Amino acid sequence: MTSPDAGIAASLTRISGELTSVVDSLATGDGADDVLEVLGGADRVFVLGAGRSGLALQMTAMRLMHLGLAVHVVGETTAPAIRAGDVLLTASGSGTTAGIVRAVETATEVGARVVAITTAPDSPLGRAADALVVVPAATKLDRSGTASTQYAGGLFEQAVVLVGDAVFDALWQRSGLSADDLWPRHANLE
Amino acid sequence: MTSPDAGIAASLTRISGELTSVVDSLATGDGADDVLEVLGGADRVFVLGAGRSGLALQMTAMRLMHLGLAVHVVGETTAPAIRAGDVLLTASGSGTTAGIVRAVETATEVGARVVAITTAPDSPLGRAADALVVVPAATKLDRSGTASTQYAGGLFEQAVVLVGDAVFDALWQRSGLSADDLWPRHANLE
Amino acid sequence: MTSPDAGIAASLTRISGELTSVVDSLATGDGADDVLEVLGGADRVFVLGAGRSGLALQMTAMRLMHLGLAVHVVGETTAPAIRAGDVLLTASGSGTTAGIVRAVETATEVGARVVAITTAPDSPLGRAADALVVVPAATKLDRSGTASTQYAGGLFEQAVVLVGDAVFDALWQRSGLSADDLWPRHANLE
Amino acid sequence: MTSPDAGIAASLTRISGELTSVVDSLATGDGADDVLEVLGGADRVFVLGAGRSGLALQMTAMRLMHLGLAVHVVGETTAPAIRAGDVLLTASGSGTTAGIVRAVETATEVGARVVAITTAPDSPLGRAADALVVVPAATKLDRSGTASTQYAGGLFEQAVVLVGDAVFDALWQRSGLSADDLWPRHANLE
Repeated sequence: MTSPDAGIAASLTRISGELTSVVDSLATGDGADDVLEVLGGADRVFVLGAGRSGLALQMTAMRLMHLGLAVHVVGETTAPAIRAGDVLLTASGSGTTAGIVRAVETATEVGARVVAITTAPDSPLGRAADALVVVPAATKLDRSGTASTQYAGGLFEQAVVLVGDAVFDALWQRSGLSADDLWPRHANLE
Repeated sequence: MTSPDAGIAASLTRISGELTSVVDSLATGDGADDVLEVLGGADRVFVLGAGRSGLALQMTAMRLMHLGLAVHVVGETTAPAIRAGDVLLTASGSGTTAGIVRAVETATEVGARVVAITTAPDSPLGRAADALVVVPAATKLDRSGTASTQYAGGLFEQAVVLVGDAVFDALWQRSGLSADDLWPRHANLE
Repeated sequence: MTSPDAGIAASLTRISGELTSVVDSLATGDGADDVLEVLGGADRVFVLGAGRSGLALQMTAMRLMHLGLAVHVVGETTAPAIRAGDVLLTASGSGTTAGIVRAVETATEVGARVVAITTAPDSPLGRAADALVVVPAATKLDRSGTASTQYAGGLFEQAVVLVGDAVFDALWQRSGLSADDLWPRHANLE
Repeated sequence: MTSPDAGIAASLTRISGELTSVVDSLATGDGADDVLEVLGGADRVFVLGAGRSGLALQMTAMRLMHLGLAVHVVGETTAPAIRAGDVLLTASGSGTTAGIVRAVETATEVGARVVAITTAPDSPLGRAADALVVVPAATKLDRSGTASTQYAGGLFEQAVVLVGDAVFDALWQRSGLSADDLWPRHANLE
């Protein structure tokens, strides 16, 4: 037997509390709506993240596809080269993940724009981004437990899920489309 | 220009409020800790979900791998057959997704156990599960907007991310392992 | 120690011999060029296969993307719904794989066309296809060893790789594009 | 209308001829069976390739899983860190693909062994490998058309498929297992 404190409910309450704190800090910020301008003006959107951040961004990518944008996940078989007019949407807690920084450099070189989610606005990723959402959460590399009780970058990755869904939600509102307009785009061959 | 109400911050606040309500209802429930017993006793864990629920469960899968469990994502090249002693961890808002219901039947037939996250305990998935987390959120098929302002199953899928992370967090606490014990398992070839 | 006959070179010679026999039978057939007409006229191409056949078709999908076609792999995050004007390119040795037969039915219902590679022209898949490449190879379900010395559908799957590359090669020739025209489409963010 | 020479049959005959030439050169070589020793002695096998080479190696990975080996595809959600005792199986036509060379360095540093398929034994990849299959085929970067009529690294990638299947076939023979022994490992939840 274990104590109630070691159960799912206790963990969920604690995790939810941490996430709410992060979101509250975020929601009082400004400047994030540049993200909507950059994404809304993209020819095509490419998403890229490492590990769980990448999975969180894939959740966003699927919604952007439902909204009618041309979207590619970097690493998928059918993802072509990025070029001028496209946007790279990426996330890295530390803003220093090597593969992401290299991709941002490539995107910038070809004339694509970069939207980033990070905890570190003064990181290589933060400085290179054309539009930025800054998440006040622990990074994956911070294992001290002071910024979050959760393992590694868990809190940041949860925030990426919610920020991605908020970006979609705001773009959806701007689009004037109804839920029934989006529904026919859902994958129908699986 | 758009009104402040159509920006990321407004969407984020609303989404976070919905998710907190769902989590609060969830955290007062009980029975969910059977999930920990079933997962903790698994030879191997297989995760399966459709679309964004599947991506959310992949986030969980990665953490369970960090914890030292043998984990497979159904559909990955290297996922073998499930067999007795294994556990299928799955999520479906409606509990009726055809491919998931078929997989649950197969898992049950071979003697594997099933852990499910759903809004519908009385669905085919809910009834077949050995352990269940019931999420009081709108399903993907509910496009009325009464249960959530978000598109399709967004709220449910966000809850799957948090429930998955709470399951990991609770298992981690039970394991007695430190963050430094888990870190060496993170992928090092990318 | 093992005998020389149990080494890679011996296996490779035998596998290559089997594949050459299959290809020779194939190359004397006709009707396959309907495949080029159907694919060449597609708004978008969706590829779908189970297991190793699916990986083989992903190799084809990447080349079709290099050629400038709009291509989606079924199951990828960003794959939308198939609709009239699109083409489903699929492969199943037996022509009876349940998930593929269901997808073909869906594709046909919405008015998309179907291109199939199979050993069984009189199977559900073979009969439903608008254009067909028939491969005279053992299917995955034939474990008798009479049609091929290789395990399961190995020979069929190798043939799918070569047929896919021949389809690309023929479309490339028809396109009048040079290698240097295709090269800029190769993924540049990895 | 197009000439018969621009059809699938003509392309298939030409491609098959090129592949047979490559395989014939390969099959007369020796030393490749070190590959079997290294793979046979692996705790776990990790496969990694870029683009179509990576898909070809995933075909091999699935077969090695059927054979009972513990296999991971680098980049899959559930792939852990490589460590001493493991083997990295990789392929690069030029032997210089940056991400692969970095992965090989990491693998070597932690004490894992490396098996490589390449056209270039004197490349960074070729020199670092513990066991090597050298394929006399054009690389992706050679667009001159002198080594192969096919686009980019097509011929090399086809050879990777066949070499991978020959490696599996030879390991299967050594294992003494029957087809019916392998069959129960095939994925059963899709």
